[in-house]
Amino acid sequence: MGCKDCCSACFHCFFDYETPVTLVISSKRVGALFRLIQLLIIAYVAIYVCWQQRAYQDQDSVISSVSTKVKGNILTNSSIEGVHVWDVSEYVIPPQGENTFFVLTNMIVTPGQTQSSCPEIPSEFTNCESDSDCKEGFNEIRGNGVQTGRCVQYSDAIKTCEVISWCPLENDTVIPKPALLGAAEDFTVLIKNNIQYPKFSFRKRNILRHINSTYLKNCTFNKKTDPHCPIFRLGDIVTEAGEDFSVIALKGGIIGIFIDWSCDLDFSERFCIPKYSFSRLDNKNPENNVAPGYNFRYAKYYKNNENIETRTLIKAFGIRFDVIVFGTAGKFHIVPTIVNLGSTLSFLSLVNAVCDWFMLNFMKDSNYYSKHKFIHLNKKGDCVPLSSMETTSYGTP
Amino acid sequence: MGCKDCCSACFHCFFDYETPVTLVISSKRVGALFRLIQLLIIAYVAIYVCWQQRAYQDQDSVISSVSTKVKGNILTNSSIEGVHVWDVSEYVIPPQGENTFFVLTNMIVTPGQTQSSCPEIPSEFTNCESDSDCKEGFNEIRGNGVQTGRCVQYSDAIKTCEVISWCPLENDTVIPKPALLGAAEDFTVLIKNNIQYPKFSFRKRNILRHINSTYLKNCTFNKKTDPHCPIFRLGDIVTEAGEDFSVIALKGGIIGIFIDWSCDLDFSERFCIPKYSFSRLDNKNPENNVAPGYNFRYAKYYKNNENIETRTLIKAFGIRFDVIVFGTAGKFHIVPTIVNLGSTLSFLSLVNAVCDWFMLNFMKDSNYYSKHKFIHLNKKGDCVPLSSMETTSYGTP
Amino acid sequence: MGCKDCCSACFHCFFDYETPVTLVISSKRVGALFRLIQLLIIAYVAIYVCWQQRAYQDQDSVISSVSTKVKGNILTNSSIEGVHVWDVSEYVIPPQGENTFFVLTNMIVTPGQTQSSCPEIPSEFTNCESDSDCKEGFNEIRGNGVQTGRCVQYSDAIKTCEVISWCPLENDTVIPKPALLGAAEDFTVLIKNNIQYPKFSFRKRNILRHINSTYLKNCTFNKKTDPHCPIFRLGDIVTEAGEDFSVIALKGGIIGIFIDWSCDLDFSERFCIPKYSFSRLDNKNPENNVAPGYNFRYAKYYKNNENIETRTLIKAFGIRFDVIVFGTAGKFHIVPTIVNLGSTLSFLSLVNAVCDWFMLNFMKDSNYYSKHKFIHLNKKGDCVPLSSMETTSYGTP
Repeated sequence: MGCKDCCSACFHCFFDYETPVTLVISSKRVGALFRLIQLLIIAYVAIYVCWQQRAYQDQDSVISSVSTKVKGNILTNSSIEGVHVWDVSEYVIPPQGENTFFVLTNMIVTPGQTQSSCPEIPSEFTNCESDSDCKEGFNEIRGNGVQTGRCVQYSDAIKTCEVISWCPLENDTVIPKPALLGAAEDFTVLIKNNIQYPKFSFRKRNILRHINSTYLKNCTFNKKTDPHCPIFRLGDIVTEAGEDFSVIALKGGIIGIFIDWSCDLDFSERFCIPKYSFSRLDNKNPENNVAPGYNFRYAKYYKNNENIETRTLIKAFGIRFDVIVFGTAGKFHIVPTIVNLGSTLSFLSLVNAVCDWFMLNFMKDSNYYSKHKFIHLNKKGDCVPLSSMETTSYGTP
Repeated sequence: MGCKDCCSACFHCFFDYETPVTLVISSKRVGALFRLIQLLIIAYVAIYVCWQQRAYQDQDSVISSVSTKVKGNILTNSSIEGVHVWDVSEYVIPPQGENTFFVLTNMIVTPGQTQSSCPEIPSEFTNCESDSDCKEGFNEIRGNGVQTGRCVQYSDAIKTCEVISWCPLENDTVIPKPALLGAAEDFTVLIKNNIQYPKFSFRKRNILRHINSTYLKNCTFNKKTDPHCPIFRLGDIVTEAGEDFSVIALKGGIIGIFIDWSCDLDFSERFCIPKYSFSRLDNKNPENNVAPGYNFRYAKYYKNNENIETRTLIKAFGIRFDVIVFGTAGKFHIVPTIVNLGSTLSFLSLVNAVCDWFMLNFMKDSNYYSKHKFIHLNKKGDCVPLSSMETTSYGTP
Repeated sequence: MGCKDCCSACFHCFFDYETPVTLVISSKRVGALFRLIQLLIIAYVAIYVCWQQRAYQDQDSVISSVSTKVKGNILTNSSIEGVHVWDVSEYVIPPQGENTFFVLTNMIVTPGQTQSSCPEIPSEFTNCESDSDCKEGFNEIRGNGVQTGRCVQYSDAIKTCEVISWCPLENDTVIPKPALLGAAEDFTVLIKNNIQYPKFSFRKRNILRHINSTYLKNCTFNKKTDPHCPIFRLGDIVTEAGEDFSVIALKGGIIGIFIDWSCDLDFSERFCIPKYSFSRLDNKNPENNVAPGYNFRYAKYYKNNENIETRTLIKAFGIRFDVIVFGTAGKFHIVPTIVNLGSTLSFLSLVNAVCDWFMLNFMKDSNYYSKHKFIHLNKKGDCVPLSSMETTSYGTP
């Protein structure tokens, strides 16, 4: 073969346009079926994929920064501490957190603890009758200290093993009821939340632009009347979460403050606003619970007049508020659009297969259609339509 | 129908190969259009989808662990506290955080507070002229304690309601200027960051392998000269975030330290390095702001000589640094590859439709092409091309 | 053209069904190849995409809330502090954290520090021979205070620059060995974890429903025997992470407690259970390390008898446990299903191209097949098959 032939072949190969030979059937039934299925697929894409699911969008997850500020004072009058006014620096522990803040609502105070020895709190593990029931150096994981090996009088009736520990020991069997700081439900918390979607260079904060300072100074969040106010009354949060403040205040709990920043960034930035919701995160009263509620112990350390370290131990019950920021933003992007349209296009090509099957099996003239649609090539070189072996083939009339 | 026929039919059904009959048109115009569109689609896939978007990759989000260590000392000489050297355990509050650390830059100290009663800080809510202006037990949310019902002298000119609280009350109207610990800009912080992509079993830390201990002991991060040094000067961080340290130190603020671990794991692990960036997260000076800056109150508790609990209240202004680690890693995976290639293949099949439309509408010989491409079957059983009803059909010459 | 013709054209356009004319080839070789490739693609979709990758599922990331509670006591007997029993409120610092808790295992205690002046700790930067080696007001970033400009006796042999600071200075060159609170490996921690997948309205906690309270009171997590017990012995965690507790206790470290909530929500909620794993997050002994281990300093503040502020500085070494909750849940969703099936369908259409290529190049009768498959239209209006220019075209026999 010469060079000219070769070039010509290449040229043909590159510029010849191939298009399938098509049989056009004027049948209302098949035509209608064909258009109906096409319509269904296009409607699915338009309505469901594009409108509902926004599958043409690229997505990004939120990055967030939260700061909180609680306000309010409480006066308590307990037998141990006397009249005491609690302010923020006392009942919010630790004084600042990242996405979380804890508000003290109830407590058991054990003042004047020093390193010394004293009888254990009575229990099945610590009760004793003589020194032989106690073991020097024994350190029960659920106990409060290290046993000295002696059995001593806890009260007139009960003897327990003596332990070395911070003495006197805390007795947490009786929890104050009602909660000492139950009035904490009137406290308010200002939540400042800055978010960004780095993929879209989008930044926003939960104090929206149309809110002015005067409003901010006096507003309180309310789902219906003030949905954009960033100041929340603790009692309202707990009520929205479906709980009773006076009950949760007794033993504590964890309340989630959810801020949903799901946004469609194809629309104006104005429409991207946070939606708040609240729910209790720890389980209230399931059968299989350990350590229900939420509490922890902390201590204030002093040196007494003899320069001996003394501490006031506080078992703090309270509500931990977890500010959980979530959401995804979507914005038109060509790749997911192509992927979703492309996949649906594939289904459009399936429609032909369905209609062919219908045409060749359920139509009156199916034999006739089949004769024209299929050209059978058998090994002998003859063209024979499958459905009518006896008739002459299409190619050789 | 006998069993033999049935088997034969099945055999045909399974092994007969069906391929569309194709019309080959030697037209440079259509051919060129066809190839051009094909080329565009393939170029889009190759360049945009594969190279730019790396859509052939499976993705995973980063899991991170951060620890920080601040270094530096400051000597202050204030009227209340006298000469005082501040070290890390005093100005970093709390002493350790997970993804965040707070550096004290300014403060209002109120020493010697005890539970007692004293006049309120003057304001529109607390000023009074006689006892009748004050209400016993009233607890104003923006006030500092619980009113006793008496109106007492605050200063020579002003009378305010008396409250029970930690007295004397803090007066935070005057903030020290310049900031007491403004020299904190010379402090350095070492940030250790370990990340992993669990889907790809990939782990790395921000102290890169090629960095040696000698370098680590003396380096300071600099975007241009030392981009991999994990030790940051606080002043540099604030400057990079576009802020003035002496200004932000006055009232505090929140600065984000962003560590971007976006990686293409199809390349060597060596190329997966963290990129640092910094920006201020709270809003500086918008019109609608409440509680600008960043501050919180904490107290140190003492017992005085009469064994009465006393505290030093500190309103701490400072900079909270949030270390925000983000990023996604991608690695070749067959499923997204198939999905992306497949969807684009669907579009290749659309090219035929476009070229057919062009051929049948804009070409000189369109009638002629149409005659050969379409075989019309009408209900009477005749084959008639649509475009030339008067000519004989293709099937019956 | 009249209105009637126009309507008729539209009607045809809408209801005419177009289907490609197909050549059926009874060749076992091509047929088998065709079916084989089809089978491979369908098997890939069924086995890999659907079964293995669950690509038909929509996915959501976990939102989690963690609370922890450590239990245990330790008796230490050090030369400085004497006999001391440590309880939770002393060795867990801060007393509560969100996703993290720190357990003290070793420490350097410096009691009785006051604001005064004292000689620096000897080092290459602080050693001096005369006052001229020290510079008043100099504040070395790695030093412990601000120099007074005097060179004073540190010990009999060594002179160092005097600094104003919290004096006496801490000397952290000698770390207690074995670790003071090495017995902390017997402590237990209860981890409560509540998760949710907001997209699927799915909530669960790590205390599973079939676990009863009696079991919870006595169980300890063990990968084999008690994989669902939420109470962990610290020593077991460290061992599972591949570390030696007595070694890590010396200088501290960071241990990750990973809770994997990956779930297939198409199955029953019962099968969605957390999987725990543990690993060390900080680097143990790499060559290029700074500040190995994990430690921080905190202080307890007192007023001594002369009402001067005194503090006990503690350099706390210990293990920070980071509870890292991750996982994605999947549930059947129509959009990803369509996308994945659609993309694979596109590949099915490629099968035809492959088989055609095989048929036209590698089969004995390829010329014959080609003659029937292609109808060549050249510009002159003749139909000539490409492969046999000399024979008459298929359309004009």
